Amino acid sequence: MKKILLMNGPNLNMLGVRDPAIYGTDTLEAIEEMVRAYGAEHGCEVDCFQSNHEGALIDRLHAAHGNYDGIVYNPGAHTHYSYALHDAVECIDVPVVEIHISDISKREEFRRHSVIAPACVAQVKGLGKEGYLRALDILLENAVAEGSE
Amino acid sequence: MKKILLMNGPNLNMLGVRDPAIYGTDTLEAIEEMVRAYGAEHGCEVDCFQSNHEGALIDRLHAAHGNYDGIVYNPGAHTHYSYALHDAVECIDVPVVEIHISDISKREEFRRHSVIAPACVAQVKGLGKEGYLRALDILLENAVAEGSE
Amino acid sequence: MKKILLMNGPNLNMLGVRDPAIYGTDTLEAIEEMVRAYGAEHGCEVDCFQSNHEGALIDRLHAAHGNYDGIVYNPGAHTHYSYALHDAVECIDVPVVEIHISDISKREEFRRHSVIAPACVAQVKGLGKEGYLRALDILLENAVAEGSE
Amino acid sequence: MKKILLMNGPNLNMLGVRDPAIYGTDTLEAIEEMVRAYGAEHGCEVDCFQSNHEGALIDRLHAAHGNYDGIVYNPGAHTHYSYALHDAVECIDVPVVEIHISDISKREEFRRHSVIAPACVAQVKGLGKEGYLRALDILLENAVAEGSE
Amino acid sequence: MKKILLMNGPNLNMLGVRDPAIYGTDTLEAIEEMVRAYGAEHGCEVDCFQSNHEGALIDRLHAAHGNYDGIVYNPGAHTHYSYALHDAVECIDVPVVEIHISDISKREEFRRHSVIAPACVAQVKGLGKEGYLRALDILLENAVAEGSE
Amino acid sequence: MKKILLMNGPNLNMLGVRDPAIYGTDTLEAIEEMVRAYGAEHGCEVDCFQSNHEGALIDRLHAAHGNYDGIVYNPGAHTHYSYALHDAVECIDVPVVEIHISDISKREEFRRHSVIAPACVAQVKGLGKEGYLRALDILLENAVAEGSE
Amino acid sequence: MKKILLMNGPNLNMLGVRDPAIYGTDTLEAIEEMVRAYGAEHGCEVDCFQSNHEGALIDRLHAAHGNYDGIVYNPGAHTHYSYALHDAVECIDVPVVEIHISDISKREEFRRHSVIAPACVAQVKGLGKEGYLRALDILLENAVAEGSE
Amino acid sequence: MKKILLMNGPNLNMLGVRDPAIYGTDTLEAIEEMVRAYGAEHGCEVDCFQSNHEGALIDRLHAAHGNYDGIVYNPGAHTHYSYALHDAVECIDVPVVEIHISDISKREEFRRHSVIAPACVAQVKGLGKEGYLRALDILLENAVAEGSE
Amino acid sequence: MKKILLMNGPNLNMLGVRDPAIYGTDTLEAIEEMVRAYGAEHGCEVDCFQSNHEGALIDRLHAAHGNYDGIVYNPGAHTHYSYALHDAVECIDVPVVEIHISDISKREEFRRHSVIAPACVAQVKGLGKEGYLRALDILLENAVAEGSE
Amino acid sequence: MKKILLMNGPNLNMLGVRDPAIYGTDTLEAIEEMVRAYGAEHGCEVDCFQSNHEGALIDRLHAAHGNYDGIVYNPGAHTHYSYALHDAVECIDVPVVEIHISDISKREEFRRHSVIAPACVAQVKGLGKEGYLRALDILLENAVAEGSE
Amino acid sequence: MKKILLMNGPNLNMLGVRDPAIYGTDTLEAIEEMVRAYGAEHGCEVDCFQSNHEGALIDRLHAAHGNYDGIVYNPGAHTHYSYALHDAVECIDVPVVEIHISDISKREEFRRHSVIAPACVAQVKGLGKEGYLRALDILLENAVAEGSE
Amino acid sequence: MKKILLMNGPNLNMLGVRDPAIYGTDTLEAIEEMVRAYGAEHGCEVDCFQSNHEGALIDRLHAAHGNYDGIVYNPGAHTHYSYALHDAVECIDVPVVEIHISDISKREEFRRHSVIAPACVAQVKGLGKEGYLRALDILLENAVAEGSE
Repeated sequence: MKKILLMNGPNLNMLGVRDPAIYGTDTLEAIEEMVRAYGAEHGCEVDCFQSNHEGALIDRLHAAHGNYDGIVYNPGAHTHYSYALHDAVECIDVPVVEIHISDISKREEFRRHSVIAPACVAQVKGLGKEGYLRALDILLENAVAEGSE
Repeated sequence: MKKILLMNGPNLNMLGVRDPAIYGTDTLEAIEEMVRAYGAEHGCEVDCFQSNHEGALIDRLHAAHGNYDGIVYNPGAHTHYSYALHDAVECIDVPVVEIHISDISKREEFRRHSVIAPACVAQVKGLGKEGYLRALDILLENAVAEGSE
Repeated sequence: MKKILLMNGPNLNMLGVRDPAIYGTDTLEAIEEMVRAYGAEHGCEVDCFQSNHEGALIDRLHAAHGNYDGIVYNPGAHTHYSYALHDAVECIDVPVVEIHISDISKREEFRRHSVIAPACVAQVKGLGKEGYLRALDILLENAVAEGSE
Repeated sequence: MKKILLMNGPNLNMLGVRDPAIYGTDTLEAIEEMVRAYGAEHGCEVDCFQSNHEGALIDRLHAAHGNYDGIVYNPGAHTHYSYALHDAVECIDVPVVEIHISDISKREEFRRHSVIAPACVAQVKGLGKEGYLRALDILLENAVAEGSE
Repeated sequence: MKKILLMNGPNLNMLGVRDPAIYGTDTLEAIEEMVRAYGAEHGCEVDCFQSNHEGALIDRLHAAHGNYDGIVYNPGAHTHYSYALHDAVECIDVPVVEIHISDISKREEFRRHSVIAPACVAQVKGLGKEGYLRALDILLENAVAEGSE
Repeated sequence: MKKILLMNGPNLNMLGVRDPAIYGTDTLEAIEEMVRAYGAEHGCEVDCFQSNHEGALIDRLHAAHGNYDGIVYNPGAHTHYSYALHDAVECIDVPVVEIHISDISKREEFRRHSVIAPACVAQVKGLGKEGYLRALDILLENAVAEGSE
Repeated sequence: MKKILLMNGPNLNMLGVRDPAIYGTDTLEAIEEMVRAYGAEHGCEVDCFQSNHEGALIDRLHAAHGNYDGIVYNPGAHTHYSYALHDAVECIDVPVVEIHISDISKREEFRRHSVIAPACVAQVKGLGKEGYLRALDILLENAVAEGSE
Repeated sequence: MKKILLMNGPNLNMLGVRDPAIYGTDTLEAIEEMVRAYGAEHGCEVDCFQSNHEGALIDRLHAAHGNYDGIVYNPGAHTHYSYALHDAVECIDVPVVEIHISDISKREEFRRHSVIAPACVAQVKGLGKEGYLRALDILLENAVAEGSE
Repeated sequence: MKKILLMNGPNLNMLGVRDPAIYGTDTLEAIEEMVRAYGAEHGCEVDCFQSNHEGALIDRLHAAHGNYDGIVYNPGAHTHYSYALHDAVECIDVPVVEIHISDISKREEFRRHSVIAPACVAQVKGLGKEGYLRALDILLENAVAEGSE
Repeated sequence: MKKILLMNGPNLNMLGVRDPAIYGTDTLEAIEEMVRAYGAEHGCEVDCFQSNHEGALIDRLHAAHGNYDGIVYNPGAHTHYSYALHDAVECIDVPVVEIHISDISKREEFRRHSVIAPACVAQVKGLGKEGYLRALDILLENAVAEGSE
Repeated sequence: MKKILLMNGPNLNMLGVRDPAIYGTDTLEAIEEMVRAYGAEHGCEVDCFQSNHEGALIDRLHAAHGNYDGIVYNPGAHTHYSYALHDAVECIDVPVVEIHISDISKREEFRRHSVIAPACVAQVKGLGKEGYLRALDILLENAVAEGSE
Repeated sequence: MKKILLMNGPNLNMLGVRDPAIYGTDTLEAIEEMVRAYGAEHGCEVDCFQSNHEGALIDRLHAAHGNYDGIVYNPGAHTHYSYALHDAVECIDVPVVEIHISDISKREEFRRHSVIAPACVAQVKGLGKEGYLRALDILLENAVAEGSE
């Protein structure tokens, strides 16, 4: 059975509270539940982790090394400056898909550049909470494809 | 039955000829066949189109309006300057996933910026020819998700 | 009798389909008809041309050399990068007025810079479809003024 | 009867004195007379105003609010830095056409950027003194078009 | 009794006329009255001055030297380029608080940089007309604090 | 009774130790005491928090949501890069005033840009420890003003 | 017998019409004839191709793969933005020399940067029509040198 | 007898008040007197003018046209943005020497660039009040040299 | 006996796992042991600390104040954005030497700029694990030199 | 008989020693010999000069004025900053071809810009030592062409 | 008797040869003679030095320390990059006036920035050979003024 | 016995004369003596070389190839632009440590970037003359380490 890590960065624990016009009305718990359920349907186990601490997120990525088939990761505002998280993604052997709920291409200037994306295999954005499922799709199939080789 | 368009931009007809260390040894025909087969397995029909002409690519995107469930699109070097293709993607009602065979984040400076990405729902890169399948995954599932609403 | 060319660049054939909040609900055909009618009222013949192909637009500009009294030209997204169209405008003896339906000064960053404007005698923007008539005004009167010298 | 304001910014009172190779040999008075005569022919009254004082120009724009059908405005070197004049144009209900005698696209680097243009409906340049008439054309016809709605 | 100067720069005399969605429906007179009343309640006299003339604003700042306990100053669009006003603020012995009605961080690119702020002790923004009172608070208390030393 | 949070970011626990020519000789404890006393005089309770951990500061801001009337916040060097703290300030319903002891406009280049300021209602700087009181003034009065509506 | 392709990009069909002070009075046909004659003298066959269509130029470069000993290429204004042509040059096994009639180092800012040059073995400029012969020299000799190894 | 204009821009009326560590303790009147006396010794008449109004300074430069042998001009902070003053200097037939009391190369970033200097024949800086005399020297001798031809 | 702190930032705990072509095959433990042994040979005690948490690293630097003779510090990716760590280094009285295992001048663009270096007395790079010893050399000798004054 | 100068700038005396993967294993002497021999075959005399001294290179260029038919010049790292060498090339009447052994477009960022190229008639790069012969070809033929006019 | 050094940098020995439209037809010898004669008239001795070697120019500046009353210095193209000459000017006790024959503000972009000017007391430009005399005027009078204190 | 080269670039011969507040009061001779003595103590011979001539410094670096165990190098202002010296350092087999007496991170903008550092193994700065000894430490130990392998 495949194992996937769903990881959310700073302020995503505020989903449902923070500007609903941009981020929707679902809480993070609801989204985690949706992803877990979808994973289960597709025969994979999903572990969830959220933190506002850059260091804790780095530690969790290291711990994923050798233990997961893929990571769905919404880095929140770390996207725009945390080279340490870039390096953490780069130094593990697990494929990571970056996901953003809103369309970061249509918002403030600073949100358009991701320093983490260069270490990821894909970026999904602007699809709302459904984006998490699309990010998961890539990893599920990718895992299969690799498994079958 | 779902319909997907696989569209490749300039110079991708040279796959198999162009620097194999970067782009692999498969021809475009082999890749198109692979995507078509994978689509068939997942219950969807895949049409293929390649052109070195920006105008022909824009025309094809317009023609896709209302006729496809998604587009897997490798814009080649148009990625870096064709705002006309950006607008063509933006003005149709079909979700588009940008895909690059090589990891454009690790190559020349000019390859790191995509003017088309802001109009797409996702970008897949650096996974070689498998990337086309991962891009397709997003659209297949996305179509399902939308269909079920 | 004066002769004017009305030329529209990429994606303008999608008018009426593309985001009506920005571009209005009129089709390109309706706009072409409006300009033709206005021209007829002011004693001038208006030929219309639209293409998504940069090369076709350049060819048409060259063909206009020596054959028109002015060109009303909406370059669409070519505005922002096609130095080839800049040069095509520059190398013919026909005055060209650049026109944009929306106010490109109020939209995405990349829409604010025109590489074609330096070769034109005027730029009209943000007046909706009426802008085409205002652009025509400049050319009609300009032709008269030059004729009377 | 329509009312138009012809407004000229700093140093344009020196026309005829300043580098004739660039600005021509006509004085500002001659140009104002030409515009007034052309306006009269087209059934509109033209008031003229020139000042080297940014504040006086802002005051005059405010005074035009509700009292003119359009403004032909050559901002001189204010073009390149006076955000206050940009805002003055933006906060009145009168359409403004920016006009430059020389082709500012072909001169020093600093002359290529206009901070006032984003608030105007059109920019005419490089047509010498005739440019003032072309700018007026846009406003006359525009007024008609609006009047007929 | 403390003395405060309330100074407003270019186009702020158009408050109530200019885009009410951004600037509100109050006139400058109403705001000046509100600030005067609030000042009176807190035992201080408020003088008001507005001008569209950079030079007049500089003169007024010089005249404030040695005669006021603080200045609440909305520089309007001068904010973005008038180094002369920066120097005028810097060369007097009166603390100045910069205030903006709208949130200039959320508007056009050019509005995000203030060349005057480096010479001020604080900047208040995005609080609507109430912002004027908050700016006054800083100066009232500051004066007291300094007075008590 | 109003509740205010006084929050200090990285290295501010070193106040009194770090370069006294710039930051003064008072310890953070002394400043916290001063703010608490001033708050008490003005009928408000002040809670104090300092951390060198970005994540802990984000957590504290979230916890303030719905529980405080305002936050006086000196982000230290986080000012210049922590978009995560920007978002944390933005996603809570408590007004935040940014405060800096030294005049960051007069120091190294990197200290002149604040990525957090766009989410705050005001910035106070260069007034030494007194700046904390001025920042508090804004919030106290603001709270009153809001309360009275 | 060696085979060389002489390829000219957009607007070069207008040679002799376009600004003779910069581009000279010869037509493209005259230049093509001159190059063919010079080639014949040096024992090589020269094929000529001109197009205003980026796509057609890319197609022609691909077709040259394996069929020519060298390409003399004047990309016109494509020089400054067509990364697709850069890639087309890069993905074929034929050495390409970029040639410009005028001295692009001495003209408008945008003409100073070539995005195609990095894929070429040499750039010749500012020698007028003679520059085409100099570009040919490099390829003739280069072919010899390679042939003799 | 030669005629020289000594012109000072915004805030220079505050000399003696403004930061003496940078600008010295002399008032503008004292400096004007010093320049007049030095001029008298060298057989030239010196008129003095100071204004904080950009428009008034432009008017004065225009009035100098044909009436003075040279202008010693300290533009104050206008140095850094007033293209209108640049143009005013450029459109008159009187040589202008820019002078700054302090060494603007050693102060804030924004003080290092002069938009007026390109229209002047020389720039003197960092010599304190003596700099005015050195600027005058250039004009006196220059006038002689021209007179003797 | 001298005391030295060896401090390693984010992801350096992954040494031996992360790309050995760049970082070598030694683990962090092996490097710490090497440094400790070398220190012992030169009569100094070396304490080791690694963390992925910026806040923990700042805390450790503060704790070093007054307690160590020098710090050998590899900031990992914090090098490129953590102004908070810059300030932490700057506000303590212990000399710090920045060390990088790989030659950051030869890698991705973002790795070439260090925001921490301005607060350090030296930077050693590109010498592999030996670089740690060279960094230690500077501090040992420095301590001696200072001790002998 | 034609005369050509082969001039090499700083560090090119180290050829054969410096990184052979980039610069090849030939010494400068071998290359000079190769060029001399090739010149002799084509009926021209080649003088050789190498120096690490910018001044000596400028002197040599001046001395070439009126005495050579062309110069093949590899400026080494002077390419990227020596405007003095640019001017030296510009002020003599001898055509100069810039040549680089490696492909400077594919190396460090700083090697991509040449300040000397604008004064040369061509640039040859990335062809190894053969590039020197290709550069010579241009000059030989150019001299012939000029001679025959 | 005062002593002045006239120093000219690279390529100025080519005066009279190099583009006379820009630099005039006089040789450097003629200019040196003119300056010497003018100096003699004003009671000062002028030594002349020209070199194309940056190092020789630095040596000469050092040798001037304590031995001259002023230096008239035309740095030629060193103006734009030689920080070593900037430092040489800065570390001696002799005032230096930078002089350019042509108006460097009106030429290529790279000629508009001087890295040496910040260390000089004045810059004279665009006055042709007469500019050398104007530069000398500043130093003569300056020397007098200093001498009389 | 180890051999070390101590090399100093332009203007360092002026040490003791140039601004002592920044560079101290010691002459270069005194520093050379100090380094030689320290070297002797540590069993190594130190040769000293200073020049203001870039070419001479390059020559000396080349001569060091194969003849020294390390180089302590203060490039003075060459640090900021001499890519030729960068290449000279890069093409020899001797490790080089860059050293600056003052803290170049705290001075003018242009002093903060070193184009030579990428070719060195370390940079020491801001430690005054002691910095030379620290730079030497790195090389001495490094030589030992390499020797023992």
